[in-house]
Amino acid sequence: MTTRYGITPCVKVNGIQHRSIWADPEQGLAWIIDQTRLPHTFATHAMSSLDDAAEAIRTMQVRGAPLIGATAAYGIALAMTFDPRDAHLDFACTELAATRPTAINLRWAIGRMRGVLARIAIDSRVEAAWREAANIADEDVEINRAIGAHGAPLLAALQQRAGRTLNVMTHCNAGWLATVDWGTATAPIYTLERERTPLHVWVSETRPRNQGLLTAWELREQGVLHTVIADNAAGHLLQRGKVDVVIVGADRVTRRGDVCNKIGTYLKALAARESGVPFYVATPGPTIDWTIDDGCAGIPIEERGGDEVRMVHGVGARGDPCPVRVLGASSPVANPAFDVTPAALVTGLITERGVCAASAEALAELYGKRSADETGAS
Amino acid sequence: MTTRYGITPCVKVNGIQHRSIWADPEQGLAWIIDQTRLPHTFATHAMSSLDDAAEAIRTMQVRGAPLIGATAAYGIALAMTFDPRDAHLDFACTELAATRPTAINLRWAIGRMRGVLARIAIDSRVEAAWREAANIADEDVEINRAIGAHGAPLLAALQQRAGRTLNVMTHCNAGWLATVDWGTATAPIYTLERERTPLHVWVSETRPRNQGLLTAWELREQGVLHTVIADNAAGHLLQRGKVDVVIVGADRVTRRGDVCNKIGTYLKALAARESGVPFYVATPGPTIDWTIDDGCAGIPIEERGGDEVRMVHGVGARGDPCPVRVLGASSPVANPAFDVTPAALVTGLITERGVCAASAEALAELYGKRSADETGAS
Repeated sequence: MTTRYGITPCVKVNGIQHRSIWADPEQGLAWIIDQTRLPHTFATHAMSSLDDAAEAIRTMQVRGAPLIGATAAYGIALAMTFDPRDAHLDFACTELAATRPTAINLRWAIGRMRGVLARIAIDSRVEAAWREAANIADEDVEINRAIGAHGAPLLAALQQRAGRTLNVMTHCNAGWLATVDWGTATAPIYTLERERTPLHVWVSETRPRNQGLLTAWELREQGVLHTVIADNAAGHLLQRGKVDVVIVGADRVTRRGDVCNKIGTYLKALAARESGVPFYVATPGPTIDWTIDDGCAGIPIEERGGDEVRMVHGVGARGDPCPVRVLGASSPVANPAFDVTPAALVTGLITERGVCAASAEALAELYGKRSADETGAS
Repeated sequence: MTTRYGITPCVKVNGIQHRSIWADPEQGLAWIIDQTRLPHTFATHAMSSLDDAAEAIRTMQVRGAPLIGATAAYGIALAMTFDPRDAHLDFACTELAATRPTAINLRWAIGRMRGVLARIAIDSRVEAAWREAANIADEDVEINRAIGAHGAPLLAALQQRAGRTLNVMTHCNAGWLATVDWGTATAPIYTLERERTPLHVWVSETRPRNQGLLTAWELREQGVLHTVIADNAAGHLLQRGKVDVVIVGADRVTRRGDVCNKIGTYLKALAARESGVPFYVATPGPTIDWTIDDGCAGIPIEERGGDEVRMVHGVGARGDPCPVRVLGASSPVANPAFDVTPAALVTGLITERGVCAASAEALAELYGKRSADETGAS
C-alpha cells in the first residue's frame, strides 16, 4: 500500500497507511475516498476523466482546500491524458475553477499546473502533468507534516502547564481527509499522539454537512480520544473551562490574517476570546491570499443549496444509507458555507514555516513578502 | 373553534385559531398537539387520563416550561375526574412530578393545583380542578400577551430606525407551542405581525433536537416571513449586518439577570454584542429564580442522552417518520442541553410587567422584591 506514495503516510485506515488521493498514471486513473459516504462507509473511487474530477469536487466527494487543490491538479492530468492540446488545457482549467468559488487552493493549483504545462511541448504534457500533480500532493504532505512539527510544541506546552490531559477543540474537518495526509488542524494532534502526549479532542459536528463526524472517524482510526458535540455546545464548554485550546483549519487567510473557514468558526473564536482560551489557525502557505487584506470585505462567501440544511444523510436501522428530510419546502433556508474570523480573534497562525501572529507584518516576514507599504499598495 | 377558550387565541393553524392545549370537561378530555410529529404532521391528541398526561410530558408530546405546567394541571383535572379523593390527588401529584424532574413550571403548577384542591370538598373537586387548570392556562396566555405588548414597541422602534424590513433572530422554540398561546420570544413578533410591521425572522435550527423547526412551522402558519439557518450561521449573519435584533426565551433567569436557555444561546449573545446588535430575553415572571444569583455557578446544566446527537428524526421520501443515525457508538458524545448567558450580554429582559435591564436592581424593582442588601444576603 505504501508503494503508491513517495512518502510514507502518517494516517491509517483500518490499520493500513493511506492518503486521501493517489494516482495510477499508467492506468490513467486518480483514486479518491468518496467522503460523501463517510463516516458510515469507507469506499474508494477511481476518477478517469476531467469530468470525474470536477464532479468529485462539486459534489464534495473530496473537500478541504488542500485536497481540492490536489484533486484539481490530478483533474488536469486526467484532462491532458485525454487531449494535451492548449485548448483542452484552457477548457480543463476553466471547468475546474468553476466547481467551488471560495477555495483559494483550487485556483492556486490550477494556476500552477497551467504555468508548468504551458511551457512544455504538447507531446510531453501528459507525463509532466502527472508528475506535477504528484509534486503538489507530495508538497502538501510535507507542508502538513511541518505544520504538525511547529504546532505540537505549542500544545505540548499547554498540556504541561495544565498537568493533565489537554482538551483541544476543533471545528469541521481540517484533518487528513481535507488534505493529502496529516491534515492541517489535526497535524499537531497526530504529532502529539505519536509522542504519547495525553490529549482529548472536542469535535463539533459542523452542521449542515456534519464534517465534524469525518473528524471523529479520523480520530478514532488513529486512536485519538475524542467527544462529539452539537455545534451549539462549544460556547458552554469554553465558558466552563473544559477547553484548553481551539485549533481550526482555514479555507483562505488574508494578507493581514483574517481567517475564512467553515461556517461556525467565528462563533468559536468569539467564545474562545471570552474565556481566555488560545485560538489557533493551522494554515499552509498556499491558503494565504496575498491579494486580500480585509476578509469581511474581500472574500465572497459561498451560499450553498438549502437541501444541505433540509436533508440529513444518515443510515437506517440496517446501516443502509438513508437521506431524511427534517424541513420541508415551505420554509426558506439560507446556507452560507463559510464565515470570516477577524485577525484580532486569532492567537496565532500555525504554518509550515513556523507559528506567527495573525498580522500583515508577521505573515510578510514569515513568507518573505514585502509589506504593502514597500510595494506601494494602500 | 374559539368557543373552547376563554380568550380568543392569537395563533392559527391551517387558518383556525388554536391553543397548544385545550379542555373538554364535559367529555373528560384535554387535547394537545402531538409535538413529536411536528413540523411534519399536525396531529391533535386527546388525553383522557392521568397516565395520558404523564406520558405526554415524559415523551415530549408537549414541551416548553409553561405548556408542561398547563399539561400537568389538566393531568390533575383528569385524575380528579377519575377519583377525586385525597389519596388519588397525592398519587397524581407524585406521578406528574416524576415526568420531568428538572422542570420548574411543572412543580409550580402541581403545587398550585394541590393547594387549591386540598381545601375543597371532595364532591366539588372535579369542577374546581378543571376550573383551576383553565385559570393556569388563561394566566399563561395573559402573561405572554403582555410580553408581546411590552416587546413590540422595542422592535417597532428598531424597524422605524432601519426604515426597512426588520430582521429578528431567534433560537430554539420560545413560541406558542412552548406556552399555551403567543409564546414568549414570539409574542412581540406576533404582535408586530398583527400591526403589519414589516419583519423577517432568522430561525436557528437548534441542534440537537431541532426545535427551531417548530418555530419555522409556527411562523409559517402565522404568515410571518422567515428563513431557517444552521446554528453555525448565526455569527456570520450578525457580523454582516443581516440581523437587527436577537430575541430568545429562557428556561431560568437568575436574580441578577443571568439567562439559562437552550444550548447555543450564549454563542448568539456573544456574536450580537460583537456586532452591536441588541440581545433581548423574553421571560415570564415565574421563570425568574429569585434564589440564584450567579447563573454559571448556581444552575446545574442538564446533560441529556447522546442519542439526541447521534440520531436525527426526519421523514422519508413518502413523508413517513424516519429516524436515522448520523454517528455510531464508536465515538463518545456530550450533550449539555442548556447554557448560561451572563447578564452583561443581555440588552434587556422583556417581561409581562415591562422591559428592564438584566440586573438585580432592575428585576427587584419590577417585581417589587427587596434587594439582597436589604434582606441582608451577601
